[in-house]
Amino acid sequence: MRRELRQLKTLEEARRILWEALPERLRQGRFGAAESADIEHAVGCALAAPVTVPEDLPPFDRSTVDGFAVRAQDTFGASEGLPAYLEIAGEVRMGESPDCALSANRAARIPTGGMLPAGADAVVMVEYTQPWGENSVEVLRPAAPGENVVRRGDDLRRGGELLPAGHRLRPQDVSALAGLGLARVEICRPRVGVLSTGLELVPHTDTPSPGQIRDMNGPALKAAVRGLGAIPVDLSLVTDTREALRAALARGVAECDMVLASGGTSVGAEDLIPEMIDALGPPGVLVHGLSVKPGRPLVIGLAGEVPVFGLPGHPTSALVIFREVVAPLLRPAAASLPDAFPTVPARLARNLPSQAGREDFVRVRLERREGEWRAVPVLGPSALVSSLVQADGIIRVPAEAEGLYAGEMVEVELLT
Amino acid sequence: MRRELRQLKTLEEARRILWEALPERLRQGRFGAAESADIEHAVGCALAAPVTVPEDLPPFDRSTVDGFAVRAQDTFGASEGLPAYLEIAGEVRMGESPDCALSANRAARIPTGGMLPAGADAVVMVEYTQPWGENSVEVLRPAAPGENVVRRGDDLRRGGELLPAGHRLRPQDVSALAGLGLARVEICRPRVGVLSTGLELVPHTDTPSPGQIRDMNGPALKAAVRGLGAIPVDLSLVTDTREALRAALARGVAECDMVLASGGTSVGAEDLIPEMIDALGPPGVLVHGLSVKPGRPLVIGLAGEVPVFGLPGHPTSALVIFREVVAPLLRPAAASLPDAFPTVPARLARNLPSQAGREDFVRVRLERREGEWRAVPVLGPSALVSSLVQADGIIRVPAEAEGLYAGEMVEVELLT
Repeated sequence: MRRELRQLKTLEEARRILWEALPERLRQGRFGAAESADIEHAVGCALAAPVTVPEDLPPFDRSTVDGFAVRAQDTFGASEGLPAYLEIAGEVRMGESPDCALSANRAARIPTGGMLPAGADAVVMVEYTQPWGENSVEVLRPAAPGENVVRRGDDLRRGGELLPAGHRLRPQDVSALAGLGLARVEICRPRVGVLSTGLELVPHTDTPSPGQIRDMNGPALKAAVRGLGAIPVDLSLVTDTREALRAALARGVAECDMVLASGGTSVGAEDLIPEMIDALGPPGVLVHGLSVKPGRPLVIGLAGEVPVFGLPGHPTSALVIFREVVAPLLRPAAASLPDAFPTVPARLARNLPSQAGREDFVRVRLERREGEWRAVPVLGPSALVSSLVQADGIIRVPAEAEGLYAGEMVEVELLT
Repeated sequence: MRRELRQLKTLEEARRILWEALPERLRQGRFGAAESADIEHAVGCALAAPVTVPEDLPPFDRSTVDGFAVRAQDTFGASEGLPAYLEIAGEVRMGESPDCALSANRAARIPTGGMLPAGADAVVMVEYTQPWGENSVEVLRPAAPGENVVRRGDDLRRGGELLPAGHRLRPQDVSALAGLGLARVEICRPRVGVLSTGLELVPHTDTPSPGQIRDMNGPALKAAVRGLGAIPVDLSLVTDTREALRAALARGVAECDMVLASGGTSVGAEDLIPEMIDALGPPGVLVHGLSVKPGRPLVIGLAGEVPVFGLPGHPTSALVIFREVVAPLLRPAAASLPDAFPTVPARLARNLPSQAGREDFVRVRLERREGEWRAVPVLGPSALVSSLVQADGIIRVPAEAEGLYAGEMVEVELLT
């Protein structure tokens, strides 16, 4: 009854409503307490605070070519017809401080990356020089001050912001941090409480009695949370009373940065989750019901500053909604950058009817045929385990479409 | 000199040459020794062996709707005008074995997911029934045998293959494994040896003397390897002699499943890596030089069954080539599935000239402007740390293109 009265939201609307209700801190991906981490272990984790550049980079003027370090003014007017003759004062070696300084009309051999000797302000490429006599060199072209040189601090200036708070570290950021000697960073990893509800459930490590089945969503959601660099917190399996559900949710809100409750999608229990979310404190339920298949029974709430999600009980539906609604919050780069899934073009193997006004996520298997990928819909209820492992990707059928035709090219989002 | 003589390979060619030389085991992603892992920790890891279905799923005949379990034959011919009258023998509760069996003209209440009582072979939806008297029900439609029932083993049959060897676990696979009570799986994680070469390098944890710089590729490649679920092995920083480089490579080939050596891209050292790869044993160097910017000095070899890569020394180049050439081997799903990066459409902010015959990877920053993403090329040499952290994505300029124009829409691959 209540189900009929409520207004189903589109995925877009649901995401926007949640986003607008989130505290600024969470929008920036700053969940939980800061912890120190070795940069080699921090890929995928969000920075708890901005990283400041600790020193000028490069720390010294460097040559960008193999050649001769010079005082630019000594080369002014040089040409092939009238070279500048410079005495070779020494040779810069990689990894060493130069043992010479340049006075007027002197040059020093220098390799790419070598440190400029005192007095030098430019480098002439070896191609534009010619050895002359025992210990001199002809310079056949003038060099402008700064030519072929990266000056100290040209790359990064001490005190500037290298990376903002909430930035999710990528291998290239690790490269930059290492270059600056920052071997550890402060990260924050969201603690995500996971609980499954269902009278028929037993832990997946138990042997079910006749009539019982093993909890699948708990382990799958915990694995998915961990795969995003967050910390899953087991809030246990709630099989019995309202009281146990209330207690598990309250513990989750007290101990975690986010709570995922899956299951309880039968009519009675479906109404129980929103009621309990409201009871946890304002603002309470934000979204109840999604015009998405699978995912209709989704509940999104906020208890104080802790997002609480009531995910569908069917394993496929729970994971689709996790991917679409929950995961973006755990990938805080989404705040300033687009969030996208890897896709491949494929030819649809059969007609896909769809209800207008509802966005459909259709699971497909990919098959290679005649030099192209074919997307074969995986049929059957979303509770089937076989359909979970068979799906290689997902096709989105937009709400305004009435379906897709066999033979059409579609973009398949890979499930990774 | 030698550099000029060798034939540069396209990325496509280099990948194909490597793939064809790989032992079958590595193509399937079965690197290294098998280890046992908790499924909640195994997302992203490759299976060391196929997983077999240990039991029929569902383990019992289940109802897919709320209604009455019946013997189909007792409902044949039933209609609204002439209902079948069945005595209610009991009620099936979720998570319990039914305490009743159906004899002729009897029915049992059953919830969605409930276990069919003995004798029942179909379920009539509650919508097509009507209470009748104290303890009976009118059935208003006939049910076919098997209607609204998932039979034992319909989903998965004991002894079948659930997942093949080399399959990389996704959250939905964890869901399936949990459903079958498989709490641990045998996985194999590649051990990837990482070494950096360069006279001017010091470990990133050290303070460089004037003229020295910190190793960036070692930490970045180890972090990237770890991010793919593999185990990085530190083969140390080789700053000095041929002998040290030879020893580090030999140790890598003996202890690891794959070796990444970065740096040594100056003319002399560039020739040293292929020579040493050849010395490690046949088949030796497979590819030397790529028609890709950045990435030209790439060396790919195989020492026995161990792939050895000589990656460029510039941090951006090393990571681009890691992503394009090395990472696909560590994502074994690539063997049977397409490998794709997440992309977003964006408008190019400036002209990008490109040399025909060379594939260009151009780093870009993404900016939101007037409802669309703008791709702003990050300029400057690939050694700049600032350019590493600024890049949000990459644009590929194909070898046959002579460049791209400002205002064109391009697909930007997100760097994640």
